Parts: sequence; C-alpha cells; structure tokens
Amino acid sequence: MKRYVIALAVGLCSALPSHAQFQKPEDAVKYRKAAFTVMATHFGRIGAMAQGRVPFDGAAAAANAEIVAEIAKLPYMAFVEGTGGNEKGSPKANVWSERAKFDEAAKNLQTEAAKLALAAKANNLDQLKAAFGNTARTCKACHDNFRND
Amino acid sequence: MKRYVIALAVGLCSALPSHAQFQKPEDAVKYRKAAFTVMATHFGRIGAMAQGRVPFDGAAAAANAEIVAEIAKLPYMAFVEGTGGNEKGSPKANVWSERAKFDEAAKNLQTEAAKLALAAKANNLDQLKAAFGNTARTCKACHDNFRND
Repeated sequence: MKRYVIALAVGLCSALPSHAQFQKPEDAVKYRKAAFTVMATHFGRIGAMAQGRVPFDGAAAAANAEIVAEIAKLPYMAFVEGTGGNEKGSPKANVWSERAKFDEAAKNLQTEAAKLALAAKANNLDQLKAAFGNTARTCKACHDNFRND
Repeated sequence: MKRYVIALAVGLCSALPSHAQFQKPEDAVKYRKAAFTVMATHFGRIGAMAQGRVPFDGAAAAANAEIVAEIAKLPYMAFVEGTGGNEKGSPKANVWSERAKFDEAAKNLQTEAAKLALAAKANNLDQLKAAFGNTARTCKACHDNFRND
C-alpha cells in the first residue's frame, strides 16, 4: 500500500525521472521558463514599489525579495545543451559556446538578488530602489548577450 | 538614467503591474502553473530516491526538499476567482465554493513539505520515505477534491 501510494504520488506530483536531472530537453525548458515566471512575478512586485506605482511596503518587499533570491539559484542548471533556438526569447547558441561567461552572468544575478533581499530587510525605500536597479541590470545584461530579441 | 534603467528593467524582468497581485486572470494561472512545475520537479527528485530509482543522496534530498517547502507557499494566492474550468488539470469550481476546505488542503501540503525538509536534513532514507509519502498524500488529496481529471 505504501509503495502504491508513493508510486501514485510520483505520477501525480512530479514529472521527473530517476536517472537524470531532466529526462527530456523539453522538461528542462519548461522548468527554467517556470522558474523565470515565478521570479519575474515577485521581482515585478518590488519594481512596482521602486517605481512608485504602489506604496512602499517593507514587509512585502522583503518577502518578495527573499523569493527572488531563492528562485534566482534555480533556472541555470536547466540550460542544457541542445535547448537553444532562434525564436524570440530563446537562448542564443553562445549560452553554450561561452558557457563560463553565461555562468558568470547568472552568478551576477544571484549576487545582486541576495543583496536585494538584504536591502529589502532594511525597510528603506532608497536602499530598495538602488538594489532593485542593480539586480535589474543583471537581468538586462544577460538578456542582451544571451537571449534572442 | 536611473529611472530609465528601472523602467526598462521592469519591462524586461517582470510581468506584473502595480495595482494588483495579478493584473490579468491569465497571469495568475501562468504563475501558479509555473510554481507547481518548479515544485514538482524538485519533489520528483526526492521521489526518485524514495522509490530507489536513484541512489539516496542526503544533501541532494535536503536541497530539493528545501525548495519544495518554499515553493509550496506560493501557488495558492494565485487561485483567483474566475480562473477555474472544466478541462483536465484545471481547478474545479469548488476551489472557490469551498475555499476554506481548499485553503486547508493547501496548508496540509505546506505543513508536510516543511516536515519533509526537516526529515531530509536528518540524512536517513527511511525518514525521507515516510515524509515523502505523507507529502505526496497531500498532493493527491487536493487533486482528488479540487482538480478536474
């Protein structure tokens, strides 16, 4: 019964096989897009405060920034070889031909997102704006270099 | 310049408006699907160990369980009214007509996922299997009650 429940649960709750991080290339693509969607949602909520479109709420900023910092660690392992393309939004081939540079760009986001999470805890809008801008620049830098327009 | 960078960054990195958690119902749907995709990926990696399909790796289990516990907090705020449907996989109408029961089902996942993260840190396969099974049952219970087959 226990074995049955676990087998059923894996079928219901997961999409992953045993022998690889991602069974199929499309699983990696789906995963990284999902991680970026979640991250962008929470980053956007901070942006709305940084831009003055919603009132500054220190606790909300801190909660959102914490999620951004955690999710920022996730998508890059899913840039597996053979998952690039020429369509708008898809990774350029240099993600793999210049992998060290790409990994550095990812690391820059992770570093600035961690600083953003710290800054958000300070409950100070100016600090939040500065850290948001720095983090946003790492998004843009990576998109400019490694993503198809 | 600073304002320009921030405006640009929000356009590039986010999909969210200022005045609501989600601007459009479809943003909420996209977000919650994304959160479930990320969670299922990491939960599946634990399942592979619990089922013996990959060797038990305590550190990997702990890292994956930590992500599951964090992501488990996210998708439920995105079940906004009017985003149900009749298609396979979409939420049934009772998500909203029985919202307290749905919220309790979500809370059950969050509670068991937190226990899973603790169990995974114990570096003991039997504990991991038990906590995985308990967490998986909360997935199944919610799917059985609130998701279209």
